[in-house]
Amino acid sequence: MALKDVDIAQAHTLEPIGAIAQRAGIDPASLISYGTTKAKVDITTLASPSDPGKLVLVTGISPTPAGEGKSTVLIGLADAMSRLGKNAAAALREPSQGPVMGIKGGAAGGGYSQIVPMEEINLHFTGDFHAIAAATNTLSAIIDNHIHHGNELGIDPRRVTWQRCVDVNDRTLRNVITGLGGPAHGVPRETGFTITAASEIMAVLCLATDLADLKKRISQITIGFTYDQQPVTAGQLDAAGALTALMKEAINPNLVQTLGGTPAYVHGGPFANIAHGCNSLIATRVALQHAEIVLTEAGFGSDLGAEKFFDITAPFGDLTVNGAVIVATIRSLKYNGGQPRTDLTTKNLDALKPGVANLARHVSNVQQFGVSPVVALNLFDSDTAAEREFMRNWANDFQVPLVEAKVWSQGGAGAEELARVVLDNLGDHSAQLYDAAEGVEKSIETIARRIYRADKVQYSPKALKDLALIRDNGWDQLPVCISKTQYSFSDDPSALGAPSGHTLHVRELLPRTGAGFIVALTGNVMTMPGLPKTPAANTIDVAPDGRISGLF
Amino acid sequence: MALKDVDIAQAHTLEPIGAIAQRAGIDPASLISYGTTKAKVDITTLASPSDPGKLVLVTGISPTPAGEGKSTVLIGLADAMSRLGKNAAAALREPSQGPVMGIKGGAAGGGYSQIVPMEEINLHFTGDFHAIAAATNTLSAIIDNHIHHGNELGIDPRRVTWQRCVDVNDRTLRNVITGLGGPAHGVPRETGFTITAASEIMAVLCLATDLADLKKRISQITIGFTYDQQPVTAGQLDAAGALTALMKEAINPNLVQTLGGTPAYVHGGPFANIAHGCNSLIATRVALQHAEIVLTEAGFGSDLGAEKFFDITAPFGDLTVNGAVIVATIRSLKYNGGQPRTDLTTKNLDALKPGVANLARHVSNVQQFGVSPVVALNLFDSDTAAEREFMRNWANDFQVPLVEAKVWSQGGAGAEELARVVLDNLGDHSAQLYDAAEGVEKSIETIARRIYRADKVQYSPKALKDLALIRDNGWDQLPVCISKTQYSFSDDPSALGAPSGHTLHVRELLPRTGAGFIVALTGNVMTMPGLPKTPAANTIDVAPDGRISGLF
Repeated sequence: MALKDVDIAQAHTLEPIGAIAQRAGIDPASLISYGTTKAKVDITTLASPSDPGKLVLVTGISPTPAGEGKSTVLIGLADAMSRLGKNAAAALREPSQGPVMGIKGGAAGGGYSQIVPMEEINLHFTGDFHAIAAATNTLSAIIDNHIHHGNELGIDPRRVTWQRCVDVNDRTLRNVITGLGGPAHGVPRETGFTITAASEIMAVLCLATDLADLKKRISQITIGFTYDQQPVTAGQLDAAGALTALMKEAINPNLVQTLGGTPAYVHGGPFANIAHGCNSLIATRVALQHAEIVLTEAGFGSDLGAEKFFDITAPFGDLTVNGAVIVATIRSLKYNGGQPRTDLTTKNLDALKPGVANLARHVSNVQQFGVSPVVALNLFDSDTAAEREFMRNWANDFQVPLVEAKVWSQGGAGAEELARVVLDNLGDHSAQLYDAAEGVEKSIETIARRIYRADKVQYSPKALKDLALIRDNGWDQLPVCISKTQYSFSDDPSALGAPSGHTLHVRELLPRTGAGFIVALTGNVMTMPGLPKTPAANTIDVAPDGRISGLF
Repeated sequence: MALKDVDIAQAHTLEPIGAIAQRAGIDPASLISYGTTKAKVDITTLASPSDPGKLVLVTGISPTPAGEGKSTVLIGLADAMSRLGKNAAAALREPSQGPVMGIKGGAAGGGYSQIVPMEEINLHFTGDFHAIAAATNTLSAIIDNHIHHGNELGIDPRRVTWQRCVDVNDRTLRNVITGLGGPAHGVPRETGFTITAASEIMAVLCLATDLADLKKRISQITIGFTYDQQPVTAGQLDAAGALTALMKEAINPNLVQTLGGTPAYVHGGPFANIAHGCNSLIATRVALQHAEIVLTEAGFGSDLGAEKFFDITAPFGDLTVNGAVIVATIRSLKYNGGQPRTDLTTKNLDALKPGVANLARHVSNVQQFGVSPVVALNLFDSDTAAEREFMRNWANDFQVPLVEAKVWSQGGAGAEELARVVLDNLGDHSAQLYDAAEGVEKSIETIARRIYRADKVQYSPKALKDLALIRDNGWDQLPVCISKTQYSFSDDPSALGAPSGHTLHVRELLPRTGAGFIVALTGNVMTMPGLPKTPAANTIDVAPDGRISGLF
């Protein structure tokens, strides 16, 4: 039986986090340790940046449902950079605990390209998600308490948009009625829970620049509307101070290590759809202050995570992206070329040939942001020599650097060539796609045409009402965070490959005035996953000595 | 303006937790630090106990709604023991975060008798409550997921007794309907949330002896009943391994320090009513293994927390109680003697004289457990010389040691005499009140007659049904955890002083087969508090440098 990620991780001897911090250049006085192998970096004690490092964004092609190993490549690549003598760091999202109990297992890389201690990173970690849930649910309690005690602000219980959250995959909490039981127990209303990663507080955490900015953004969160349709903020409920106090530790980025001993900042994990899907800006900035080269990841492909990184995260944090890596797999290209997902390990050049158009589109998308990407071909055992040769020839013709990587089985040693090519392709410039000042409609149109290659954007009646509301409330110049299927450039998950000329359907627009963007929904967005019939939780176990088993 | 607790705590320079651990005799290899001033003690690495210390239980008289400073006296007394050269330790409950945001402020002692870092202990601490909520809510998700995916066990959705929890005071979550929205979103049912401290997982944590015992108890939790009325356990849902994995860190007791530098184990905080209300058995045992003298606290008065400590905690953990302290205040005795709670600072010997009967009853109750208590008179500025003299004379007549303490303003220095008297009154023996093997009804009757001084016990029709169910399922020999108002020895909160001859009304019995006791409800038990109109959250704030204000 093949080794599982948890076996590889548990067989590894970790370095003390103090040694990792020293390697990362973090002053011991700024280190808040959580045990011997995890720490937070106290941002209130850090000096200002000087001579910042280079930033490489790792994105991917349109994935199969199994995922293409983007985090695993990032971690292997970071270790390869370290092996080449670079002072490298990784900046990654924190895993959500709900899916760990569901179908997905852990989310900390894989094989010999993992961040460790993987069990602790996957379960509770340093409590950031719990702090976000506490802040989210405290705000809900304050809202309902305000309504219960006379409702001075005139909040319409039917128009409270703020939802509670838990970090559990629990479909039963998607639609609930609260406040039942009579007058002593609050005012009944329909509402729902999201998973913690989908709370706006998570997006706020990931875009804030410091504690004061975090508090400002929290106070600007719109929690709903009054009976006369005026927005109500967390600030109006006097909740921002308490919520920020609950987030005081969570704002500090977490430091752990890769299996190769490279410092890894693992901090924040916003839903890659309803939010921007990148780790915290603070983590990336702390990494850039201390490392020569920083590898960070954006959720899904260039059309989603990368676009949001360039158009939301980078300008919010005044970041330049110096390089980009597009993670591709032969199986996913075959999937995009029409091979059924149940049969992706069979050699099939006939599917690979059309499928590669998907990769070409992602390359071209990244180039639009002023960055020259490198394609990392994440190898699997089932890839054939002919398929690999096809890919090399294609890259040659398409004039894009493509390098094979074997990170799952070899760790950093399997990505040294990739690291060299990435370093050779660094630039000094990156750009945004659109100017948010031109308004939400224009921003959506620009993304739809240039990144999704749609011909037109169609708004539902609800979305048109939302647009009017957004204009009326002065939110029209916020950047947009488009929520779209990750399986297609279009809003139709079955349109694989490189579709163009389609229509983007905007169904609803959600103001996220704390995070500072407008979410545009183009499909059904599930913000609370469910558990499968036989969840991973059934097999997770812990021995009397504390050793955990059953994580993937 | 008087100094607030948070000001005193923040002005204090804490010792590194490593120095506290050394003083406590904890091997550095067993210390899992959380920053520089908090740690967990890894119980899987501890050696077996030898020559255990002496255990002193701190309890109180029937309180006023403001509380009588039991934790504050305990902390001051621990510091006084240290000042006398004793290797002392405190074992205390962890504060619940919900009330911190509500009316209560913090719960970590007060004045110069506090545990620190108080802000961090009050907010998140080391994440134990969050782990409990994660385990509780994961179990709920697994239950509803089982029902959703075919319900193989035949769980009756109307008879699921397991509730979700959050550590937020949120009345709106007391009664909810979940699973709405159609067939893809689960099966609708009525349910509710409790505050985290009221989850059975909290009681399980506080009574478990190690990780294996924790898992066994979790697997024995009854989550509800099938359509044919058979109990269903967490074990039958294959949930025990995953839930224990979620509790793997939480089981390790937390170590912090008092303002006097005494080691304090602060671990577990079960609701003092629906559960037994004592800190974790593991924390008390670790403290006893390493200290000469350990002070621990039980919620409410001798009729509630102390009784449960002697009859549940002590036998579960094979503990002997060597001494007991009953914390009394003049204001509370006047309250018990009929003085209105709005006017407790006015001298009133006429109220004090009858009120002291309440103290006499608590003294006699503790003596029934084979322990000789010492009364700690927790002094307030408003106490008059005449009132204090009355108390001294009363104690002399009643032949119980009574010592004044000034712990809020003087810390350990204000309790040295108390410490000496407590040390002089240590014994080698303590006893249980009843033999659980005689059955739940007999156990309740014994407590009612001997501790509450009731004449009879009356069961509601519901309680009689519950009794039958308990017998049918073989749970009749579990000890009982009676849920009763803390303001009276009877089940009527307005019957102050020392009522006798009353009837105890048992309304409902709840099997807590994981924790290992039967809860007997004798009144309305609120397991989810609400926020007041102007909650403490409104004034809690945090400065850009991370300094928190507005905690009490």
